[in-house]
Amino acid sequence: MNITLLQAEKIISAAKEKAKDLNTKMNIAVVDAGANLISFQRMDGAWLGSIDIAIKKAKTARYFDMNSGEIGNLSQPGGPLFNIEHSNNGLITFPGGIPITNGAGEILGAVGVSGSTVDNDHAVAQAGADAIKGI
Amino acid sequence: MNITLLQAEKIISAAKEKAKDLNTKMNIAVVDAGANLISFQRMDGAWLGSIDIAIKKAKTARYFDMNSGEIGNLSQPGGPLFNIEHSNNGLITFPGGIPITNGAGEILGAVGVSGSTVDNDHAVAQAGADAIKGI
Amino acid sequence: MNITLLQAEKIISAAKEKAKDLNTKMNIAVVDAGANLISFQRMDGAWLGSIDIAIKKAKTARYFDMNSGEIGNLSQPGGPLFNIEHSNNGLITFPGGIPITNGAGEILGAVGVSGSTVDNDHAVAQAGADAIKGI
Amino acid sequence: MNITLLQAEKIISAAKEKAKDLNTKMNIAVVDAGANLISFQRMDGAWLGSIDIAIKKAKTARYFDMNSGEIGNLSQPGGPLFNIEHSNNGLITFPGGIPITNGAGEILGAVGVSGSTVDNDHAVAQAGADAIKGI
Repeated sequence: MNITLLQAEKIISAAKEKAKDLNTKMNIAVVDAGANLISFQRMDGAWLGSIDIAIKKAKTARYFDMNSGEIGNLSQPGGPLFNIEHSNNGLITFPGGIPITNGAGEILGAVGVSGSTVDNDHAVAQAGADAIKGI
Repeated sequence: MNITLLQAEKIISAAKEKAKDLNTKMNIAVVDAGANLISFQRMDGAWLGSIDIAIKKAKTARYFDMNSGEIGNLSQPGGPLFNIEHSNNGLITFPGGIPITNGAGEILGAVGVSGSTVDNDHAVAQAGADAIKGI
Repeated sequence: MNITLLQAEKIISAAKEKAKDLNTKMNIAVVDAGANLISFQRMDGAWLGSIDIAIKKAKTARYFDMNSGEIGNLSQPGGPLFNIEHSNNGLITFPGGIPITNGAGEILGAVGVSGSTVDNDHAVAQAGADAIKGI
Repeated sequence: MNITLLQAEKIISAAKEKAKDLNTKMNIAVVDAGANLISFQRMDGAWLGSIDIAIKKAKTARYFDMNSGEIGNLSQPGGPLFNIEHSNNGLITFPGGIPITNGAGEILGAVGVSGSTVDNDHAVAQAGADAIKGI
């Protein structure tokens, strides 16, 4: 199972709508089941530094099949995964990366969002991930 | 002057239509006036290795404000720009990267396409660049 | 469709047998449909520099769904893909990388071999790829 | 003294058996006395992000001839090796990397495991390292 471009575009559309609701400007990336980029959009005026972060959040979520922020909980000083961010050419381990699953619970890829607070980033990514949940 | 996400999406839509006309599957990237990624799409089944190449073609075209293939003409053994590809974390200097200009001739960004022969890549990128030419 | 570890191990076993027939010592890598490493073996005494080359050959073959050497034919000075090797963190474009397909012709991944002449590398990779062809 | 491919394969087999006992899916890497990769396997469904981590754990263990987690104890904020992870193209300093010794106590290489909790990763790596201990 792998995500299609059409699904990725639905995810980005839903994420952008949520970003506008929150009055934010976001970078939004979608990777496939192999953690390879399939689609990306940067909203006008969104942070340039968030291009790479959005892509790395999406990859991180697919690399470990969990929300990026969950890894960040474990990678703190003294935590079991301290400095895991040095792997895979750089992980981003704060919220905003979420795996994408189909109706059967299979992982198809992941979405990563960056451009505001991590709470907003996560909310926008969740709106994206939810957009194809019933499929 | 800078490209907008809406313009970038028009470029990608036109490029995808051309790609389908040519019976090809393409990776299409658009960068802005600062050579930073603004939008990207990989058509289903397109080469995975072309993700990076499409982005690098777009960046190369904006880095030097000319078609990527023109730089390739100068970077051959014995040429004035031999091995310029070693700069900027890797250039791609064969056809498929084209600067994007507005009606006044100002450069707004660039488009890069990869996934087929360089002739097809260039034709698809040109279709994308033409989509906002009158603006 | 994706390759399994069991299939990857069959590929490596067949490749090693061929390597011994040719009196060579090889590095053999298998990547999956997402171009991610699934299995690797370095035969005793094989070149250390071929670890990275074998992996890059396998990735190159999957990145473009063709034998690595075919890309090398196109990437020569004056050729249409000159210096494509600067993409994707480094391609290897001489023979020894071959896509792996199932009986239905679907691409499941790729195998990359390095450690001898490119003719031997290719022959060993082909023996590996052939090992699961009927599946 | 150096590890052989045959020994590396025994290590990986034992590690995989332990991984199955623990109901986990692991990436398992073995490096030789020169810290160069000799063998690698990713079990079906194991995390993609753990490919790099397993290899880096094995290298880390051989770079310093101690368990990767021991280095992590020293690399915390305020510790003597704070942020040593920035060296060697990225170390991984939590448990799962273990030096491999022969019966005489000579170091032959190292094994690195990633795919579950660090306790499981370490247990699987230990099962691998134990597999050739009497040799």
